[in-house]
Amino acid sequence: MAATAAGVAPVAQTQTKTGGGRSRVSFQTEPGRYRHWRVSFDAPVATLAMDVAEDGGLRDGYELKLNSYDLGVDIELYDAVQRLRFEHPEVHAVVLTSVKEKIFCAGANIRMLAASPHAWKVNFCKFTNETRNGLEDASAHSGQAYLAALNGTASGGGYELALACEHIMLIDDRSSVVSLPELPLLGVLPGTGGLTRVTDKRHVRRDLADYFSTKSEGVGGRKAVAWRLVDEAVPRTKWAETVATRAAELAARSSRPPDAAGIQLTPLDKTRTGDAISYRYVSARLDHADGVAAITVRGPEQDPPADVPGIREQGAGFWLLAATRELDDLILDLRTNEPELGTWVVRTEGDPRRVLAYDRLLLGNRGDWLVNEIVLYLKRTLKRLDVTSRSLIALIEPGSCFAGSLLELALAADRSYMLAGVFENGADTGPDAEPAVVTMGEMNRGPLPMGNGLTRLRTRFFGDPDGLAALEERAGEALLAEDAERLGLVTFAPDDIDWAEEVRMAVEERSSFSPDALTGMEANYRFAGPETMETKIFGRLSAWQNWIFSRPNAAGPDGALSKYGTGQRACFDRKRV
Amino acid sequence: MAATAAGVAPVAQTQTKTGGGRSRVSFQTEPGRYRHWRVSFDAPVATLAMDVAEDGGLRDGYELKLNSYDLGVDIELYDAVQRLRFEHPEVHAVVLTSVKEKIFCAGANIRMLAASPHAWKVNFCKFTNETRNGLEDASAHSGQAYLAALNGTASGGGYELALACEHIMLIDDRSSVVSLPELPLLGVLPGTGGLTRVTDKRHVRRDLADYFSTKSEGVGGRKAVAWRLVDEAVPRTKWAETVATRAAELAARSSRPPDAAGIQLTPLDKTRTGDAISYRYVSARLDHADGVAAITVRGPEQDPPADVPGIREQGAGFWLLAATRELDDLILDLRTNEPELGTWVVRTEGDPRRVLAYDRLLLGNRGDWLVNEIVLYLKRTLKRLDVTSRSLIALIEPGSCFAGSLLELALAADRSYMLAGVFENGADTGPDAEPAVVTMGEMNRGPLPMGNGLTRLRTRFFGDPDGLAALEERAGEALLAEDAERLGLVTFAPDDIDWAEEVRMAVEERSSFSPDALTGMEANYRFAGPETMETKIFGRLSAWQNWIFSRPNAAGPDGALSKYGTGQRACFDRKRV
Repeated sequence: MAATAAGVAPVAQTQTKTGGGRSRVSFQTEPGRYRHWRVSFDAPVATLAMDVAEDGGLRDGYELKLNSYDLGVDIELYDAVQRLRFEHPEVHAVVLTSVKEKIFCAGANIRMLAASPHAWKVNFCKFTNETRNGLEDASAHSGQAYLAALNGTASGGGYELALACEHIMLIDDRSSVVSLPELPLLGVLPGTGGLTRVTDKRHVRRDLADYFSTKSEGVGGRKAVAWRLVDEAVPRTKWAETVATRAAELAARSSRPPDAAGIQLTPLDKTRTGDAISYRYVSARLDHADGVAAITVRGPEQDPPADVPGIREQGAGFWLLAATRELDDLILDLRTNEPELGTWVVRTEGDPRRVLAYDRLLLGNRGDWLVNEIVLYLKRTLKRLDVTSRSLIALIEPGSCFAGSLLELALAADRSYMLAGVFENGADTGPDAEPAVVTMGEMNRGPLPMGNGLTRLRTRFFGDPDGLAALEERAGEALLAEDAERLGLVTFAPDDIDWAEEVRMAVEERSSFSPDALTGMEANYRFAGPETMETKIFGRLSAWQNWIFSRPNAAGPDGALSKYGTGQRACFDRKRV
Repeated sequence: MAATAAGVAPVAQTQTKTGGGRSRVSFQTEPGRYRHWRVSFDAPVATLAMDVAEDGGLRDGYELKLNSYDLGVDIELYDAVQRLRFEHPEVHAVVLTSVKEKIFCAGANIRMLAASPHAWKVNFCKFTNETRNGLEDASAHSGQAYLAALNGTASGGGYELALACEHIMLIDDRSSVVSLPELPLLGVLPGTGGLTRVTDKRHVRRDLADYFSTKSEGVGGRKAVAWRLVDEAVPRTKWAETVATRAAELAARSSRPPDAAGIQLTPLDKTRTGDAISYRYVSARLDHADGVAAITVRGPEQDPPADVPGIREQGAGFWLLAATRELDDLILDLRTNEPELGTWVVRTEGDPRRVLAYDRLLLGNRGDWLVNEIVLYLKRTLKRLDVTSRSLIALIEPGSCFAGSLLELALAADRSYMLAGVFENGADTGPDAEPAVVTMGEMNRGPLPMGNGLTRLRTRFFGDPDGLAALEERAGEALLAEDAERLGLVTFAPDDIDWAEEVRMAVEERSSFSPDALTGMEANYRFAGPETMETKIFGRLSAWQNWIFSRPNAAGPDGALSKYGTGQRACFDRKRV
């Protein structure tokens, strides 16, 4: 179980330093290129050990001391977690620990944060939040439970990483603690889920949580257990043995098969230029003049394989897995590298019946671990879309395949436009031209919930059970634009005469509005109804953190983030807002 | 029902113009001094008609055209709503309308917003939100349902005011609309509950809501009904008749008695200097050097009256009503006028058994309209405390009366310190000195829920049913500090040797932290567990709005708020964050 066990992935070449803030960040990596994590296997347990290279920052200007992290470190973590799910079905529990002595993880690198522009900070926090939500998703739904083995102090984001695990054990050595020093030291929040998980997941009493979050020195030992900050404090002499026992216990709860073979997440076939990104099933045209990314997701070119062994055989080439990986990478690329493309126009192309056939194959075999992983991955990727601060407009045109799993793209959009009839002068003109249809399938009715716990359809019809029922009666039916509009499945259904003008107006108008106000509006309207820990993290917690990040008390020249480590105290405007 | 009906309150002397932003805002007013509202009575219906005086702004520099409002207008609305509840039990429905032709209300005054500092904007929005939540509370729990009779266009905050009503009717005259033009015109959000209530209360579909909120011209007539933005569109010829019918229908649902006499909300006996505020039962020392307000709430001086007629006879002098009014006014005064007093230290003084006796009297007669109003008012005032952006520290000392309703003050605090034993050198020293106790009562178990729908005790023990059960077994018992700490009812229980130092450290430390980070932390920790429309408004919506308010795209010199009305377009940083 130790990080030096057999099977440690090679720590190979350095990730390309991008420097200067100009060059694009890539979210593609693989274990052979990790600089900050060691993965080892002792089935049914894997160990993911943090060993951050101080000189391995994604940007220049800071050293990643004490296992502090930046986006590059988190990209590797995300990659490792994904590969454990798909490539290692034999892993039934994952120990998250550190290779360094006395320190688990010191959280997000402060100099990196202090030097980063506002947009970078916000986007960085969003991605790290998504990765931590992914750990919880693996524990809850994948049969790969995460165990935080804090072999030393876990502070700030380090403790927040532990909070995303099923079970937290802290070494009891009279010096190791957990802490959330963001507020007293930096004037910001523990914004990577910390404030939410402490009360809502760990059930730490709010007044103790308040005290804990103002004490930069943290809490360890029995008090950390008594306050529920960790599940157990374990003396050094019993550490390795207890970690092994707990990991075995977690692994024993897994429903993963003991002897399945994984599939390889082969490198994406991606072409990236300044104005286009293309993969096998997903592509995007980047229109910088108008601030628009035009995204197309293509449906399957062939019928699905007959059964689960057929899916396995296709592996990473299986249409829905491939398309999801590509969409996931595209979202991350555009979010991080193209902040001025404020509107994403989403189209699909293909045969809706084939999409539904893939959906049926998957949902008919949900008990299979790989099928389960594919559906969960699509769920997480669509959730990523839901919290993306870009306006999403779906265009449903002839030749499209907004059905079942791909209909979720239209349901995730802020608005959808569906052409009524056909284009009079389009490529598909003529007597055989077929108008666009949309089709609800089983994928729209449960397996792909949003962060608020509801399906996108239920969120859309929140408080309107009659409207939802009327729609559900038409499940499985290929609905024409007029029906889809009347039933509330699409927003507008202009015909060919109005189409170009209406769509152009919608897109241009969007680009004329305040980007900040759009972000705020979308973050509210997309989440009608109930809130969960996950939506509270992206809504309540992140919104407050973003506000704080934009305030002089944190980010100004005399603010706490800027003054940290200088020996000077921050100078605060003492007005409470 | 018209605003000119008999019983119109006199529109009397102007509210004192405070000017220059320096002088204090007073939240005390009464109908004889209203400049912006006309109240008329035609039992069982009252009409609250907006008639904003253009030159009646609370500050100089803007004109309140088109029934736009500022804090002064909203202070009068709040006063009117409170008086309707207490002074007019014969009113069973309230028509909210406007005296002006073709306009109901144009929302918050834009020039006022543009000229206001960040802290003012945020505090103003909080108060207006609380007042609108109060309308909903009256409709739901007071038997005074609010009917929005939109006799003309309701835009922005004007429509948000309507959204807080039970039923919305819009005149159908081909020109009157409802609209949320904040995003397209001002680059900010409809932040007074608009984005939350449109989807979560009115159940407008999210994509239609998105479209609606980007169209500054608004939506009227049948489309407004079809989209659920209003409940009905009524032609001018049938307007007065239909308003009367709807009001009568709402009134008929009320459980208020038909013939009760109200009680007068007599002027508060308040003394205000630069460093002290005092009322009969509540007082505060304002320590500007340390940034602390030391608040004391005194318990009843006498036993409660024997029965409900006794409460009625005491009227506004009835202890719990008087203390609640004073606390309410103090909170509003400190929030608005003392932003640099970042920590509120809360004490109580009195006999806890008497407090519990008052609670028993009230809860034993909850069916009485006046008793119900007193309890509801305490609930709303405690909720105001929950969303106050100040650190709240409760000090529980010998001679205090943190029992039942007043125990809620300690439960609302971010932390509580309870002295174990007695002060060795205090006034109460000696063999007869009695240590402090805290006592849970029925008031702590339901009637005073927080905005999240849970009691403060349930929120405190969120996810810890065993802890809550252990505590509830001791209900009614006067608990000493050691027990209270062990049971989790107070945070810390130092003895006399440590007391002064621990309390001093806690308060001083609080004053040394970033005020913004404290606000963000408290806004998260105070609301463990579920979210409701109300908490979403203060959490998700307000936090995003505050972020937007602090961004150059809204408030900068080239931002949309600053450019509005200048004929120049705002210049946006197009980066999406």
